[in-house]
Amino acid sequence: MKVLKNRFLLPEGFKVSSINCGIKRSGKKDLALLFSKVACASAATFTVNKMKSGSVVLSEAHIKKGLSQAVIVNSGNANCCVGKKELEDAKSITSLVAKKLNLKKDLVLIASTGIIGRELPVNKIKSGVTPLIKTLKKGNGSNFSKAIMTTDTVPKEVSVKIKIASKWISVSGVAKGSGMISPNMATMLAFFVTDVCIEKSALKSAFKESISSSFNRITVDGDMSTNDTAIILANGTAKNKTIKKGTKGYFSFLNALKFLSTELAKKIVLDGEGATKFVEVIVKGAKDIKIAQSLARHIASSNLIKTMIAGGDPNWGRVAASIGSSGAKVNKNKVDIYFGKKPVMKNGSGTKVPRKALLDLFKKKEILVTVDLKSGKKSSKIWTCDLTEDYVKINAEYET
Amino acid sequence: MKVLKNRFLLPEGFKVSSINCGIKRSGKKDLALLFSKVACASAATFTVNKMKSGSVVLSEAHIKKGLSQAVIVNSGNANCCVGKKELEDAKSITSLVAKKLNLKKDLVLIASTGIIGRELPVNKIKSGVTPLIKTLKKGNGSNFSKAIMTTDTVPKEVSVKIKIASKWISVSGVAKGSGMISPNMATMLAFFVTDVCIEKSALKSAFKESISSSFNRITVDGDMSTNDTAIILANGTAKNKTIKKGTKGYFSFLNALKFLSTELAKKIVLDGEGATKFVEVIVKGAKDIKIAQSLARHIASSNLIKTMIAGGDPNWGRVAASIGSSGAKVNKNKVDIYFGKKPVMKNGSGTKVPRKALLDLFKKKEILVTVDLKSGKKSSKIWTCDLTEDYVKINAEYET
Repeated sequence: MKVLKNRFLLPEGFKVSSINCGIKRSGKKDLALLFSKVACASAATFTVNKMKSGSVVLSEAHIKKGLSQAVIVNSGNANCCVGKKELEDAKSITSLVAKKLNLKKDLVLIASTGIIGRELPVNKIKSGVTPLIKTLKKGNGSNFSKAIMTTDTVPKEVSVKIKIASKWISVSGVAKGSGMISPNMATMLAFFVTDVCIEKSALKSAFKESISSSFNRITVDGDMSTNDTAIILANGTAKNKTIKKGTKGYFSFLNALKFLSTELAKKIVLDGEGATKFVEVIVKGAKDIKIAQSLARHIASSNLIKTMIAGGDPNWGRVAASIGSSGAKVNKNKVDIYFGKKPVMKNGSGTKVPRKALLDLFKKKEILVTVDLKSGKKSSKIWTCDLTEDYVKINAEYET
Repeated sequence: MKVLKNRFLLPEGFKVSSINCGIKRSGKKDLALLFSKVACASAATFTVNKMKSGSVVLSEAHIKKGLSQAVIVNSGNANCCVGKKELEDAKSITSLVAKKLNLKKDLVLIASTGIIGRELPVNKIKSGVTPLIKTLKKGNGSNFSKAIMTTDTVPKEVSVKIKIASKWISVSGVAKGSGMISPNMATMLAFFVTDVCIEKSALKSAFKESISSSFNRITVDGDMSTNDTAIILANGTAKNKTIKKGTKGYFSFLNALKFLSTELAKKIVLDGEGATKFVEVIVKGAKDIKIAQSLARHIASSNLIKTMIAGGDPNWGRVAASIGSSGAKVNKNKVDIYFGKKPVMKNGSGTKVPRKALLDLFKKKEILVTVDLKSGKKSSKIWTCDLTEDYVKINAEYET
């Protein structure tokens, strides 16, 4: 696998463009278009938030109907909590894009991110469609990556090339997200494009698996967005023999997709609002996978643990308290806790690891917290960041 | 009811004392004793954290056996996650107190609060027992209130007098707590003393009800402690006719207890680490009480909502997103949100309340957030505080 970090290279047949249409008063780009010259096999996962955006509702409906060929994305406005207008606006925007690109309506998807509770400036967006179509470009997609950002400080891009049965296949991904991050069966906005030729059902299965091991394993602040959307388009221009589920080629593709989505998920955590540290929480030795998953998420969501990591203080008692309060059945006298590879609690009791060694560990940029319940064989991990004064600052001052 | 706020007045027959025995290096008081001249009917609630302290385990066992007469409390060390020694230390300390006071062992309870994972300095504590007993004093119990504090900035005390069948009854309470606050069927440390004469079963029932409507309805940071303990001692020196459950006197007493525990719970939230605002979240119109309770707690635990309140920004979209992500069944097109008495979302859509009016509301010290699901008749409330940069500072710098 050839990896190009921090690049969003468009595979053959894809084009993107972006503009400022007037949603963001700063003049930064706020509207982007992704287009494939041919209709694509597609798959997606969406937020399970009950107050989900009209843009999510429409894209869910379109993607169920079959192929996809274009995605229009706006940043700065979530198109959420404005009543019936949400869905009407999403429809009228995607219909216009379809008309101007000469496509069937269902082939166009939409994603939105930004402030909740304000009507989309539909006319501004609509008048941006023609300029977007006119400026569609292939090659480097980084202008798309930047246009979908909100509180992100950096764009998040990765591209890879893999060989499947002697054909080179390109897979590229881009994501945005930095706050309101605790996806479940979905992610923040993420878009993947590939020239692979693959059956829709195989694409769906591979995408679902890669999302659940990446974007669904991160949390920044425990708050799940109304707009989480992850979409993949596969246009088949690589002309490889169509990939079916369970074949060797399928697993190569799945592998690449997992790599990409994991890289992007980690980038979101590293760009978490105010974050200075990347934290991996592993729970192992659990009786069943649900215990491992929910305990890892519970620990990774503890403000006391996240502030302790911000402060560089190896106060493992906070991890112990969090384990005990998770609601999971736990045998206190069996639990081990590790910071890095150092055991700080064994069988429910503190160890004698020198504090100096732990302080040194906590100076690192990446912190590993492992909990071993020693009650079974299941394990799970989750990635998060520390909770700093800057997180509070960013979110107390977020302008509405 | 006569109310004395910010006072911990000891009813007839109770005495307290406190010293620094050397747990806190600052020299501040860290060991306190509460004593009744006669054995008391008693009741208690404890943390449900699976990693609970040995002090909790011992007190739970003692209180089940019957009456109680003394409580020894240390601050600065949680007596938790140190293995078998936890329970041994709790036993040896309470045994010494019992011996020196000439009481049966089971009559002595213990509570601990402070850092997790360090062995109790048993010898320091034991050598403090005689000085504590020698300095026991009746009247004003505020030296006890101060000795149980950790990161608290103020002691939390309330006393009331009520008339039951022409007898004056005193009920007084004291609590500590400011971080790691999200009790469930328990609280941080809280002690109540009363001279009422009441059956143990009636006391238990009244205490349980008052705790669940007060301490169990607060959250500071969503982290549940390993040491939460609330104890009430009733020594009967008021010589009223013994109160039985369901009588008029019972409800007068329950009423007083609810008032006291609610006052103390609110004081804990107001003294929440770094807190500048008191927040009440009400969920009404729920199909069942569990939905109302868990949704209220979910909203009150959202970092995005708590930082928004710190910043004085009426961004109700964050409340909408939190409602949708709680896991509760919600009909999006029915939900209303109010800030104070102003509707900001009706039937899932934003209203046109002028921003200026909301900004003024958010300048107040007390913020009320009401969610109406309009799907039933059950309601619940929870109290919390805002999340400020100071919370992060306090918890990043907490010295271990």
